[in-house]
Amino acid sequence: MHNQINVNEKLNDIGEEEILDRIKKYMEIGQIDDDTALIKNTNKDLIINTDLLVEDIHFNETTSNPRNVGWKAVAVNISDLAASGVEEIIGITVGLAVPPSTTWDWVDKIYEGINDALNEYGGKILGGDCSSSKQKILSITALGTKGKVNLHRSNARPGDLIVASGSHGLSRLGLYLLLSDPTIETANLSHSLKLKAIQSHQKPHAPLIALRKLINCKPKNIPWRAAAIDSSDGLLNAVKCICKSSNCTAILDEDNLPINQEWPNGENWNDLCLQGGEDFELIVSLPPSWAKEWMISMPSCKIIGKMEEGYPEVKWSNGQMVKVSLKNEFKHF
Amino acid sequence: MHNQINVNEKLNDIGEEEILDRIKKYMEIGQIDDDTALIKNTNKDLIINTDLLVEDIHFNETTSNPRNVGWKAVAVNISDLAASGVEEIIGITVGLAVPPSTTWDWVDKIYEGINDALNEYGGKILGGDCSSSKQKILSITALGTKGKVNLHRSNARPGDLIVASGSHGLSRLGLYLLLSDPTIETANLSHSLKLKAIQSHQKPHAPLIALRKLINCKPKNIPWRAAAIDSSDGLLNAVKCICKSSNCTAILDEDNLPINQEWPNGENWNDLCLQGGEDFELIVSLPPSWAKEWMISMPSCKIIGKMEEGYPEVKWSNGQMVKVSLKNEFKHF
Repeated sequence: MHNQINVNEKLNDIGEEEILDRIKKYMEIGQIDDDTALIKNTNKDLIINTDLLVEDIHFNETTSNPRNVGWKAVAVNISDLAASGVEEIIGITVGLAVPPSTTWDWVDKIYEGINDALNEYGGKILGGDCSSSKQKILSITALGTKGKVNLHRSNARPGDLIVASGSHGLSRLGLYLLLSDPTIETANLSHSLKLKAIQSHQKPHAPLIALRKLINCKPKNIPWRAAAIDSSDGLLNAVKCICKSSNCTAILDEDNLPINQEWPNGENWNDLCLQGGEDFELIVSLPPSWAKEWMISMPSCKIIGKMEEGYPEVKWSNGQMVKVSLKNEFKHF
Repeated sequence: MHNQINVNEKLNDIGEEEILDRIKKYMEIGQIDDDTALIKNTNKDLIINTDLLVEDIHFNETTSNPRNVGWKAVAVNISDLAASGVEEIIGITVGLAVPPSTTWDWVDKIYEGINDALNEYGGKILGGDCSSSKQKILSITALGTKGKVNLHRSNARPGDLIVASGSHGLSRLGLYLLLSDPTIETANLSHSLKLKAIQSHQKPHAPLIALRKLINCKPKNIPWRAAAIDSSDGLLNAVKCICKSSNCTAILDEDNLPINQEWPNGENWNDLCLQGGEDFELIVSLPPSWAKEWMISMPSCKIIGKMEEGYPEVKWSNGQMVKVSLKNEFKHF
């Protein structure tokens, strides 16, 4: 079928019916034929999440390609499901709004990227909708079954340790590199760190392995209670959200920030780690015995601090408030 | 709380955190606090549907107001669930992309309209996402439990009757009136027909009552088998979709088009009925005994034709193909 398609053909030359027929090939089951899609009874609680990706806000042609944008749109959603303790990804719906001048190739690559991610994480395209618009927008809703762990943001308790499932700041560093942004001096960085940073920005991973290890290593004598959030809006923001929902003070250890082993020293670099965003790691507040087991089964994990009684705020271990002053902080508005 | 809010305040003056706090008041449970929302085990199959509403494609400031846009975004989705035999609406997620210059009042009214519709049809706002964009876009995903009736498009059989749950063409007539579009001569229409047409366009109803009556009136000696689709893309298109999926010929009766009692005669008016679109009625192909029971319990229903063996096409009872030539046919691309 592909051989017959001119990939540079524009959507307004293809026609709606043909567009939907072409999209359908990416769906094993699908809403396109029957308007709605069926989700077989799982006999379990479900969790659902919707995320928007808007061109020039969340992605653009300079910093990524459509196949990676499709991947990222799925990974971002599944990252949220992971932070709520998802057991199995059921699938996603895809709302795609694009200008009529968009090429079929762009749409095709988006769906390829979406399917790459679903092949990696599980789940199917359940359905969706497609419309013309002035700007490219992907609206993805992901659905999964909830496992036995209760990972609400409000579940942190004084005495917990705070653990990050991996390094932070890489994605934002990748964006700086892709944009040749002079905010941070990157000339002396190693080639491997640069590559890892760009990869983290363009094709981030949802922390499903970290979640599964967290679940499998829980000591038997403690309950399924932990607070978790993904660090999509940055490490510091993630810790703040847990503090706010759980009404605890977080004490972070400046010497144990979750940074890559090649990460440079310096205040700017610490700020990038704390506030870079789009890291898609799990930030978990949990009992020390569980935290230690997780560290053993998942070596990328790092204990970054602890929870204490007090106002919902984030402090360093010397008692000072954690403040960062990263330029160009990402905002949706 | 409302008294303290300046409704003309623009989103880029409010800030992201405050915007999300304000949206949260519309959610009983919600994703905003915990990234994902929990859907309690229903022990049933579920059906899911995603629809996009894009400004200047599906709505604009001339033809509607934000409260009605919010209502319609939900009703359009639930209409699709109805055509798949939904039993109970669980809820929706709302992806809202709007320019930063949008007023809070506009967003507030959208959510009011969304809640109006959920109060009418059931279900809650489960969560969502909000981002800035160049154009106003609403992406709604609706989720419900599936009842015992199997309403796939492919379930039509020769010998079925084809029944429409209500009148067609009103919504498109309403749009013509709102735009003072000269395509059709409206000077002699009654005031009540005009009002009904505008209402049908601005605040359409999802056919949940028609579905419930369809389910409750099924004769006991026949199986739960019928083909259904909603007429969101027009009556003729709906019948064609059933023919295509079920591989049958539909024979329509020109004297029994599903028109309002005040609808004028004439080819243009018949075309408007057949192809106007956004009617959100159920078009059902089902055994005659069931069709007759449905007619009794739902007087707005009309038998518009029957299914025969043959190519997947739509003919008049005189054997001619049903063709319409409505100007300005609605297209997504």
